[in-house]
Amino acid sequence: MPDNILFDNIVIIGPGLIGSSLARAIRENKLAKKITGYDHNQEIALEAKSIGVIDDVENDLGQAIAGADLIILATPVGAIDKLCTSLNAHAGPQSVVMDVGSIKGAITRAAQTLREDIYFVPAHPIAGTEQSGPAAGFASLFVDRWCILTPLERDDKAYRLAVAKIETLWVSIGSLVEKMDADHHDLALAVTSHLPHLIAFTLVGAADDLESVNEAEIIKYSAGGFRDFTRIAASDPTMWRDVFLNNKEAVLEVLGRFTEELAVLQRAIRWGDGDKLSQVFTRGRALRQAIVEAGQETDEPNFGRDG
Amino acid sequence: MPDNILFDNIVIIGPGLIGSSLARAIRENKLAKKITGYDHNQEIALEAKSIGVIDDVENDLGQAIAGADLIILATPVGAIDKLCTSLNAHAGPQSVVMDVGSIKGAITRAAQTLREDIYFVPAHPIAGTEQSGPAAGFASLFVDRWCILTPLERDDKAYRLAVAKIETLWVSIGSLVEKMDADHHDLALAVTSHLPHLIAFTLVGAADDLESVNEAEIIKYSAGGFRDFTRIAASDPTMWRDVFLNNKEAVLEVLGRFTEELAVLQRAIRWGDGDKLSQVFTRGRALRQAIVEAGQETDEPNFGRDG
Repeated sequence: MPDNILFDNIVIIGPGLIGSSLARAIRENKLAKKITGYDHNQEIALEAKSIGVIDDVENDLGQAIAGADLIILATPVGAIDKLCTSLNAHAGPQSVVMDVGSIKGAITRAAQTLREDIYFVPAHPIAGTEQSGPAAGFASLFVDRWCILTPLERDDKAYRLAVAKIETLWVSIGSLVEKMDADHHDLALAVTSHLPHLIAFTLVGAADDLESVNEAEIIKYSAGGFRDFTRIAASDPTMWRDVFLNNKEAVLEVLGRFTEELAVLQRAIRWGDGDKLSQVFTRGRALRQAIVEAGQETDEPNFGRDG
Repeated sequence: MPDNILFDNIVIIGPGLIGSSLARAIRENKLAKKITGYDHNQEIALEAKSIGVIDDVENDLGQAIAGADLIILATPVGAIDKLCTSLNAHAGPQSVVMDVGSIKGAITRAAQTLREDIYFVPAHPIAGTEQSGPAAGFASLFVDRWCILTPLERDDKAYRLAVAKIETLWVSIGSLVEKMDADHHDLALAVTSHLPHLIAFTLVGAADDLESVNEAEIIKYSAGGFRDFTRIAASDPTMWRDVFLNNKEAVLEVLGRFTEELAVLQRAIRWGDGDKLSQVFTRGRALRQAIVEAGQETDEPNFGRDG
């Protein structure tokens, strides 16, 4: 039996949807001898323990950090600065640290404040659901989904080894791994994730404000398209607040592109320019088909939810 | 064995996704003695026949209309004006006509040009998928989905009887029926269907135009949220062009609300106003939960597509 063990004790700071899914996947693939959980809300960590996702709960953040050879930061990205202070104070020498946040530029800047013998590998699995908490996680969440690593600009062997181990971890749990520059990550994800979330939150918020169409009608007739947007608009508000606060420039840039395109379509509607509308509307099918073919989407009509 | 027959010969003009789903549901519930299909593209009608969705193909529109006691118009709404001319020329006395279009104001105005012995009942089933064509249809498409009827302002008994028969048809195939004013329909659906489609088409179009993030990356990282929008952006372009050309005022009104809300969030991001972002972002979960509880959406994470 081959030994898959990559780390002795992995501590997961924030065993919510992503953290607990990682714990499950790590355990299923026997990548750690032990998984410990810490959460600033102790009930979350206790819940993760009680449903068997982690082996142990550690109530003291310093102790949790000190006892682990891999520290996974699975909190909203707004918490990372403070966690870096704790890492500097408590992490053992040669500790590996990984985050799983949806932005990478700000994380990378925070990681540069760490001691040189702490190896921080920024990671972002492009996976998730609209749910939150330890019970919402599942081991197969990352299978066939991309995980982007944005390694720091340091080329000491120890750091490169840490990056290789983190890559092995993601590949072991089924992910496809890509490495890129943190700023490019933030722009690419602004397009494929942050802007879609902002638009969905906006649409749901705007619908709430109408006097002429009441909420009961919005609920009843949501199968006309609106319901699709409510899935990502139901995502964790704190996580998403932190994303927008920390990826301001890229989000504002792609938002500018979006509002330009929207203004063009608005004018086409006002002027009755059917050709312009047709031209834009025909792009959707090919792109969706490409996403299905890339294994990133189901080909079932209505996402298969009516089946 | 009770007799469910509502009509002797139903002709479906345009047996695509919606038309062929209706044909299947009507047949399954034995609501007609015979179902005939007509399409200006004869191949569509022949396909519907060959997969057993309709009993017969009629190649002449006048004949198709003349031979039926219920004429279902399941074309893009842009074709309705011309079809009304054909109805006036060919429909037998006491014919019932129903459309299934996503807008009702323009349809109602077209219906007012018909002979008085033609009973036109505007209908809109809030159901569909992103696919098109006879093979994409299925009999259960309308089950537990709302169908809105916007009857004309006429109160002769023969017309009221036609409305009642159409309501019976929808209830028989599993729909929930509501009646309302055509203009209110157009505003309500602008919110729950037309604006979401416009936003989705816009987002997909804008993503196509970026130089800094290439299409391969958009495809790879689409699981971050973008892929959700591609479903409705893959809908039939002609159908949707006609919706926007024919529901201009209502769409421009709700689009104005949306862009206001978007500007507020844009400013909150620019100024780093986390409280404002949190406030808007917390609305989504409750509304989605209400839609799930109303039976209009699955409660499975990620629409159940990853299961």
